[in-house]
Amino acid sequence: MSEKKMVEAITSMEEDFAQWYTDVVKKADLIDYTSVKGCMVFKPAGYAIWELIQSQMDRRFKDTGVENVYLPMFIPESLLEKEKDHVEGFAPEVAWVTMGGLQPLQEKMCVRPTSETLFCDFYKNEVHSYRDLPKNYNQWCSVVRWEKETRPFLRSREFLWQEGHTIHATAEEAEERTIMMLNVYADFCEQVLAIPVVKGRKTEKEKFAGAQATYTIEALMHDGKALQSGTSHNFGDGFARAFDIQYTDKDNTLKYPFQTSWGTTTRLIGAIIMVHGDNSGLVLPPRVAPTQVMIVPIRQQAEGVLSKAEEIRKALNEVGIRVKVDDSEKSPGWKFAEQEMRGIPIRIEIGPKDIENGKAILARRDTGEKIEVNIGEISEKVPALLDTIQIDMLNRARERRDANTFTATSREEFEQIFAEKTGFVKAMWCGDRACEDEIKEKLAVTSRCMPFEQEHISDTCVCCGKPAKHMVYWGKAY
Amino acid sequence: MSEKKMVEAITSMEEDFAQWYTDVVKKADLIDYTSVKGCMVFKPAGYAIWELIQSQMDRRFKDTGVENVYLPMFIPESLLEKEKDHVEGFAPEVAWVTMGGLQPLQEKMCVRPTSETLFCDFYKNEVHSYRDLPKNYNQWCSVVRWEKETRPFLRSREFLWQEGHTIHATAEEAEERTIMMLNVYADFCEQVLAIPVVKGRKTEKEKFAGAQATYTIEALMHDGKALQSGTSHNFGDGFARAFDIQYTDKDNTLKYPFQTSWGTTTRLIGAIIMVHGDNSGLVLPPRVAPTQVMIVPIRQQAEGVLSKAEEIRKALNEVGIRVKVDDSEKSPGWKFAEQEMRGIPIRIEIGPKDIENGKAILARRDTGEKIEVNIGEISEKVPALLDTIQIDMLNRARERRDANTFTATSREEFEQIFAEKTGFVKAMWCGDRACEDEIKEKLAVTSRCMPFEQEHISDTCVCCGKPAKHMVYWGKAY
Repeated sequence: MSEKKMVEAITSMEEDFAQWYTDVVKKADLIDYTSVKGCMVFKPAGYAIWELIQSQMDRRFKDTGVENVYLPMFIPESLLEKEKDHVEGFAPEVAWVTMGGLQPLQEKMCVRPTSETLFCDFYKNEVHSYRDLPKNYNQWCSVVRWEKETRPFLRSREFLWQEGHTIHATAEEAEERTIMMLNVYADFCEQVLAIPVVKGRKTEKEKFAGAQATYTIEALMHDGKALQSGTSHNFGDGFARAFDIQYTDKDNTLKYPFQTSWGTTTRLIGAIIMVHGDNSGLVLPPRVAPTQVMIVPIRQQAEGVLSKAEEIRKALNEVGIRVKVDDSEKSPGWKFAEQEMRGIPIRIEIGPKDIENGKAILARRDTGEKIEVNIGEISEKVPALLDTIQIDMLNRARERRDANTFTATSREEFEQIFAEKTGFVKAMWCGDRACEDEIKEKLAVTSRCMPFEQEHISDTCVCCGKPAKHMVYWGKAY
Repeated sequence: MSEKKMVEAITSMEEDFAQWYTDVVKKADLIDYTSVKGCMVFKPAGYAIWELIQSQMDRRFKDTGVENVYLPMFIPESLLEKEKDHVEGFAPEVAWVTMGGLQPLQEKMCVRPTSETLFCDFYKNEVHSYRDLPKNYNQWCSVVRWEKETRPFLRSREFLWQEGHTIHATAEEAEERTIMMLNVYADFCEQVLAIPVVKGRKTEKEKFAGAQATYTIEALMHDGKALQSGTSHNFGDGFARAFDIQYTDKDNTLKYPFQTSWGTTTRLIGAIIMVHGDNSGLVLPPRVAPTQVMIVPIRQQAEGVLSKAEEIRKALNEVGIRVKVDDSEKSPGWKFAEQEMRGIPIRIEIGPKDIENGKAILARRDTGEKIEVNIGEISEKVPALLDTIQIDMLNRARERRDANTFTATSREEFEQIFAEKTGFVKAMWCGDRACEDEIKEKLAVTSRCMPFEQEHISDTCVCCGKPAKHMVYWGKAY
């Protein structure tokens, strides 16, 4: 990227949040558009974030006994159609392959929009006895949904994700796994991405096509909009019945097993941008920063500066820090702006005077704070500072989320909040879909979830005034 | 998998090598067939080998400055058609998407069979100045080729692979990168997979569609057939001209850059099976064995046996060994057979008597050798033994390869060798395609490569008797 492109100011987020987002995505070199409508290129800086998400999430999956597999990307039409609700949910938005080589196919196949049907077909061959259960499988792959409007990371026709699919002897075990994986997602978001989330259950209207229950983690972006950041579904034995999967239990009778699925996508990168970013660009939490520390030599042509920079790089590399030296010909000012745009958590500034005094400057990307340190202490101070940044970023995100979470006890209050602000609104609901539909139509607001931590805010539904059944988080969503 | 299925003898490789291969693939639980014709499921034991290949190969790529990216899986027809030789090579074997959702597409798109055209389209946006060069990109993904006959790992309609795509200012730099990556592949095969390979250049007939030169690594399977195990292509500026990619050089003139691509696939898992396997099943090189050590307790119900097994597991785990305890209810005999079928490099046998004597038995999968060791020394002995196994496996594979590599100085000798044996035959070639075609038609033998290490075997072409230009490895190929 040329210097010119880098330091042109980006649109401020207060002025136009959507444009700010697009500017950051482009100028931090995360993504590029392609000739393939609705599909993006993940450039090295963008894909490296996904690799860090993958490796850390995958380890957490494996710690719970999950094994990775890989299933085909194609689903024959007859297989997709086996579960009624599921096909209704997905058929309108799949891409169809109708020709193989020069021949029309006997049966058309879609590119997987999700793989429940393929896993069911697989499990039908694999599961015969209680001894074959459970199976806790996951795959990392891309899926395709023929979206009309697309936005980088948030919605595209092809996206990268992981999809876990498990099968169990009992309903209880399936429910336990569904919740377990939601908790893995929530912990991952908080500890690795520094993004606080609300955990809860989706309403019937918002649940996954074919699920008995869908659980979700919901995050709040800088503009007050909600982002569904991961979902976990309990299918009961619905898919098993549709696909005729049965196993012989210990008592020698045939039973239907119970299934779950759970997924997160590259949309998490969109969440990182919109939760942590600022008007200088991206701000990456240290645990998913491909480069955690950039060393910027000042007056690098002066004797000993580059060699000292390289010495510091080596020392940090040895303690496991992802670190680089920017020894390009650009001025330090350009380099600072570039590193800020890319969201690198710590910049180390080191020049001839610093070296003389045995000092260097650590500059935090998240706060702008500059800290003078002894060069000899850098390998100790930097890892500690990265931990501090990680924690501070989570705390600030949590404060911002809490400051933008409101409660409404009446319809009037509910409407007024959404007229003035964008954020989460906690309010009671009677449980009727008609109220959800009405709120969506009038206010463009959807139920995000019925949180696990229920509160009693009022006695009656915020929409119709009938007795309330659930406390719901409402919001405008991506 | 039930015990019954596991210990049924598999077909012996001497009797029917193809059936032996299929038996191993199925009984070692690597793969399953699916309802999607020509596509397979990678089961946990199969996918875990791919993960180990990926992580170790990826590190080697990154050490040479390669960065990972991800490009769309779809290629619009007009993009595929831009390079003439390339489209001729691939159009007959691609899957076409013709509908998105419920609408026919304005322009049909194929599922990528390989991504040269997409990378060119991407580079056209990215490369404007000499400062933008080189770009050394790679992606891990799946690709689709509409094959008629398929075999697990070796040939399937969808397969997993990596494809590197680089772009350079000069032809020399592109050639250097092409050879560099071939060397990365060759080192990887030898050091990680314990598979010796022959490095060389493909003939014009066998080169990649659109390439100026294709380099290959060729391995020899247990049945004497050759397996092309990785290729690296130098495109010259052919694609740049077809896609009109130009950059402004330091001298301020517009120039065409030079490109390469290089790939390896899950077919490497097929190579592992066919180079190292035996009549008891899979034999995995330690570096790609998902489980390197299986501890089998003998008389596990006896006091102290399971706890000692667990103690050994922990100790090995702490020194970085991938280790499990098989504490299932099966008999030790069943467990031995199962572990042999799955190719686990070391089995540790430990029973009450061994514990009394402070001893345990290490059993090597590759040789069957049993070694008595002091329990206290296991964490030292096992890593060393794994290294020994890794080296021994490479050496044995090399000896077998060399024993099945022949030389022919005349047509008669050439035909006689292939009438009696299957292996590599080194013989001279005049350079004319007519001779290659004739040899292929008459003997079902193809030129595998013109090896970098040329030898002078005779003065004349083994086919036509005209003066020879190159020494060629010939063989029957998968």
